Amino acid sequence: MIELTRRATFSAAHYYWNDDWTPEKNEQVFGRCANRNGHGHNYTLEVTVAGEPDPVTGFVVDLKWLKDVIEREVMAAWDHRHLNLEVPEFANAVPTTENLAIAAWRRLEPAVTAAKGAKLSRVRIYETPEIFAEFRGGQA
Amino acid sequence: MIELTRRATFSAAHYYWNDDWTPEKNEQVFGRCANRNGHGHNYTLEVTVAGEPDPVTGFVVDLKWLKDVIEREVMAAWDHRHLNLEVPEFANAVPTTENLAIAAWRRLEPAVTAAKGAKLSRVRIYETPEIFAEFRGGQA
Amino acid sequence: MIELTRRATFSAAHYYWNDDWTPEKNEQVFGRCANRNGHGHNYTLEVTVAGEPDPVTGFVVDLKWLKDVIEREVMAAWDHRHLNLEVPEFANAVPTTENLAIAAWRRLEPAVTAAKGAKLSRVRIYETPEIFAEFRGGQA
Amino acid sequence: MIELTRRATFSAAHYYWNDDWTPEKNEQVFGRCANRNGHGHNYTLEVTVAGEPDPVTGFVVDLKWLKDVIEREVMAAWDHRHLNLEVPEFANAVPTTENLAIAAWRRLEPAVTAAKGAKLSRVRIYETPEIFAEFRGGQA
Amino acid sequence: MIELTRRATFSAAHYYWNDDWTPEKNEQVFGRCANRNGHGHNYTLEVTVAGEPDPVTGFVVDLKWLKDVIEREVMAAWDHRHLNLEVPEFANAVPTTENLAIAAWRRLEPAVTAAKGAKLSRVRIYETPEIFAEFRGGQA
Amino acid sequence: MIELTRRATFSAAHYYWNDDWTPEKNEQVFGRCANRNGHGHNYTLEVTVAGEPDPVTGFVVDLKWLKDVIEREVMAAWDHRHLNLEVPEFANAVPTTENLAIAAWRRLEPAVTAAKGAKLSRVRIYETPEIFAEFRGGQA
Repeated sequence: MIELTRRATFSAAHYYWNDDWTPEKNEQVFGRCANRNGHGHNYTLEVTVAGEPDPVTGFVVDLKWLKDVIEREVMAAWDHRHLNLEVPEFANAVPTTENLAIAAWRRLEPAVTAAKGAKLSRVRIYETPEIFAEFRGGQA
Repeated sequence: MIELTRRATFSAAHYYWNDDWTPEKNEQVFGRCANRNGHGHNYTLEVTVAGEPDPVTGFVVDLKWLKDVIEREVMAAWDHRHLNLEVPEFANAVPTTENLAIAAWRRLEPAVTAAKGAKLSRVRIYETPEIFAEFRGGQA
Repeated sequence: MIELTRRATFSAAHYYWNDDWTPEKNEQVFGRCANRNGHGHNYTLEVTVAGEPDPVTGFVVDLKWLKDVIEREVMAAWDHRHLNLEVPEFANAVPTTENLAIAAWRRLEPAVTAAKGAKLSRVRIYETPEIFAEFRGGQA
Repeated sequence: MIELTRRATFSAAHYYWNDDWTPEKNEQVFGRCANRNGHGHNYTLEVTVAGEPDPVTGFVVDLKWLKDVIEREVMAAWDHRHLNLEVPEFANAVPTTENLAIAAWRRLEPAVTAAKGAKLSRVRIYETPEIFAEFRGGQA
Repeated sequence: MIELTRRATFSAAHYYWNDDWTPEKNEQVFGRCANRNGHGHNYTLEVTVAGEPDPVTGFVVDLKWLKDVIEREVMAAWDHRHLNLEVPEFANAVPTTENLAIAAWRRLEPAVTAAKGAKLSRVRIYETPEIFAEFRGGQA
Repeated sequence: MIELTRRATFSAAHYYWNDDWTPEKNEQVFGRCANRNGHGHNYTLEVTVAGEPDPVTGFVVDLKWLKDVIEREVMAAWDHRHLNLEVPEFANAVPTTENLAIAAWRRLEPAVTAAKGAKLSRVRIYETPEIFAEFRGGQA
């Protein structure tokens, strides 16, 4: 089995906030991320699929197809967006790097599974080059 | 003369918008950046000072001092902020990478000039690793 | 158990082509990579070995020895070469990143196994910083 | 004046060869690059334009426009190509990094000059992250 | 389960030496690293914790807390230090990248385990961008 | 005129110290760098030469020759060394990044000048990816 990975980048705004908490509590837990005006990041998304290379093409999956899947399932909804205000997954969940990794998995997994002979193996999201979260499926 | 450079990073939200234009015109000129919900970036700021190394310390300037200047003059006002909504320079100017470079120069130049024997030589801002703007002072 | 990894880079040309197909079919499947004049990449090879650090030297393997193995088994045959025209593994197989990872494993595994107390754990090949394939042995 | 830079990447094959020389002389001067089967690189092209930011848009030039210029003038002709065999500039000149920088300048300069208020300031080409050439116009 | 990773960097000096060996034997095994004057590196430490994101905060762990743990347990003792002369783990063990990964694990594991609901999953140390060692716990 | 740049890396130990000062004064000025046990870095040296590409070879200088010059003039003396204890330039000068840039220039300039038709244009030294110094010759 081979794991094949493609990276893509997107730029988005977000903030961390819990409506059930006072502003003081939000600031205490979330620090500068609790600024409701929002801040943002250049995120890097790494999508890894696993399978056997096709003996004729040498492809686990066609990388052009994978790029289109990432574009359609994630980039179209997240790039140049405000994650809290425009992305349904984060209407009621804090858009932490951890939650972004899970949400990206759920967006990508059905499309990748529909491809013959490959499965989604791993999703990694870098919020900055220093911080990243990784999800390999299952409960979360 | 030696040029000494220090990098710092900050995360901020912004959008591109001109109140004198229709939404259609804004979208035509600014594309996805015209989304008023905002998006964001991990910016990298590169600050270059020029001077002679002190014969005793070997420093053009003390890098710890330069870090504090960058922190106080730029980071405290821009990091984890919405540039359009919270930074005075962009109340009436579009926060493009070009305008950020000029604004960072104007914030840093007085503090660097006040240091004995060094001058601000260059400010560079990366909006992404693929796009950056550089300003060396003078009119803009 | 510790995993120890060393990176190396090489520059090579390749194209994607299947002699059993018409030129149109090749172009449809392989896109711009079907250009028979070839194009090329700066590849990065990551070789990971696993084992216990020697209690005296602190080495899983001697990194100088690992560098020589990579040089002799892979670099000498692949660097500054045309993969389709000069590398036996790709006389009848498309030199995709997936197939390069498998081929690098097969070149490296016997030499690493011959070393006392370590085994080859993982081979990763980056075709670009955005695309990489990883193989951990077994059937492929 | 502000300098605004955009990066783009392309993958190409090339070799170094002088028809007036014997194979021995070619190998002596050009080393492994004299392999006529070709090898290749992921090149990075950095295009810098200089000008005043437009007071309304904050743009020195529209980065989307600059991307299109780079795509049309350079990428369409060089990406996924064999530089010696398919690019006219290198029919009779060795495609060194130095010559690529000059050729990219000559392709880009007319299109950038045609834009109101900006001029091409600098072209830099990375053959690898360790080697790059830079041209600022004038004779070469 | 999600894996969340944070990077930190430190600068340290070290050498490789075994007191039971002659200088010749040390040089033969350790090469240039046997220079007793020492040399040094910018190390990058990657710390990965695994757990379920808290349903309220979206955090596997608070990244600010994780930064403080890394600072207190590793950085305070290793950054701007000579590993052989100032770090107890290397009084009698060679400070190879492998041994640094194990030592970092042992420093971090108790503090991470003390946090509710997360465990230390992986420690990776880069000695240079080309060489890194990874430890996932257990005997070593 | 073209500028051609080659990067090289070296690992070295150093400390900052002035024998004319008390330990307290050294610590006050140099902070953690005043630790006499030393610490270290992976330095990156960027050497830029300027000239016209040779019309036959397309070379400003032969990059293999430039690599040998850097190896002979700088790497052989600085790599895997303690800068204060083993490098003559720093017997009586603090090995700051600024002073390293000047010292590298003085080591490289005679050898590059001796080459036909090229001159040393710029030397840049990165102490970390965040801090670098650049020297273009002249008094310092």
